[in-house]
Amino acid sequence: MSLSDIDRMIQLLARLPGLGPRSARRAALSLLQRREDLLRPLADALVRAADNIRQCQLCGNLDDSDPCRLCRDNRRDTSLICVVEELGDLWALERSGVFQGRYHVLGGTLSALDGRGPEQLNLSSLWQRAEHPDVKEVVLALSATVDGQTTAHYIAERLADLPVEVTRLGQGVPVGGALDYLDDGTLMAAFRARRPASS
Amino acid sequence: MSLSDIDRMIQLLARLPGLGPRSARRAALSLLQRREDLLRPLADALVRAADNIRQCQLCGNLDDSDPCRLCRDNRRDTSLICVVEELGDLWALERSGVFQGRYHVLGGTLSALDGRGPEQLNLSSLWQRAEHPDVKEVVLALSATVDGQTTAHYIAERLADLPVEVTRLGQGVPVGGALDYLDDGTLMAAFRARRPASS
Repeated sequence: MSLSDIDRMIQLLARLPGLGPRSARRAALSLLQRREDLLRPLADALVRAADNIRQCQLCGNLDDSDPCRLCRDNRRDTSLICVVEELGDLWALERSGVFQGRYHVLGGTLSALDGRGPEQLNLSSLWQRAEHPDVKEVVLALSATVDGQTTAHYIAERLADLPVEVTRLGQGVPVGGALDYLDDGTLMAAFRARRPASS
Repeated sequence: MSLSDIDRMIQLLARLPGLGPRSARRAALSLLQRREDLLRPLADALVRAADNIRQCQLCGNLDDSDPCRLCRDNRRDTSLICVVEELGDLWALERSGVFQGRYHVLGGTLSALDGRGPEQLNLSSLWQRAEHPDVKEVVLALSATVDGQTTAHYIAERLADLPVEVTRLGQGVPVGGALDYLDDGTLMAAFRARRPASS
């Protein structure tokens, strides 16, 4: 028997994080029962996302325009670059509202275990951006994990000869914690207590 | 500032049952990071569902064809009609595999509190179907709630003069339990222990 449209929808919903087979069925039921109200708008939104979302060539953010709306926003401070591992970390910082500069999304961390070297990360454009005369400070907002801190150390070393201050997040980031899971208050405390990466 | 495609996607995902704002963001991230693998197929599946899923004019089931694949399946026993409240209940019974007849989806229960009368339910076609000479038994697989049992009683009364046996689910349905939440074993026990509705 060929898979019905409903079965296919449930199978794909079950692959979302946080949804198992049972909650995927309930989500599908809810979608079918609220077709014009929820199913159609969500279908349209996903098609638009699949068609339009692209990676910003400047910072690596995902947005429906390139350069992304953060890079195009003239009110943001171009002298500050905040380096994050993943898109989710950028979103977390934006929600906290603590940072008003530009971002740089690495797309991961260096990892000896997973065999991820510098060439797998969005780093070459970071070296270029850091050399721009406008840039005064690069904030390394990386997770307090071994890989995150290894990556921070690597970037700090590479930027050491440039006339930019390299800082990392300060007190407040719990050891072993992933940035995306922190509450806004902790993120703000950590941002305010940032200190030179060489210390 | 206008809502970006990403924000819109997150807002809609957060309206699914079981997903809050945070898990909706994680789902959106996962979709964006697995665009060809997950985002595009899910978008296509939802568009297909929104375009193709319709209500079966015979039984009230939702499917991508009308009559639905259950009503078209000649291997199913046309002498048995199983009446359920909602689509989710039909899915639960199909998963248990205990029933091989046809279904009838009411689209809810009678409810004095919510002001839902017989005319709001998919009942008039049930009266017609029950009069068909092939039909030997109508199983009332309704939730063991006040509204569910009120509805079962109402249907049993209306069908009392017809030459069909009207049964309801037996032992195994926990008092106050909604059918959709039962495990397969309980559903099978209840189905096997069904008894005449007049007892």
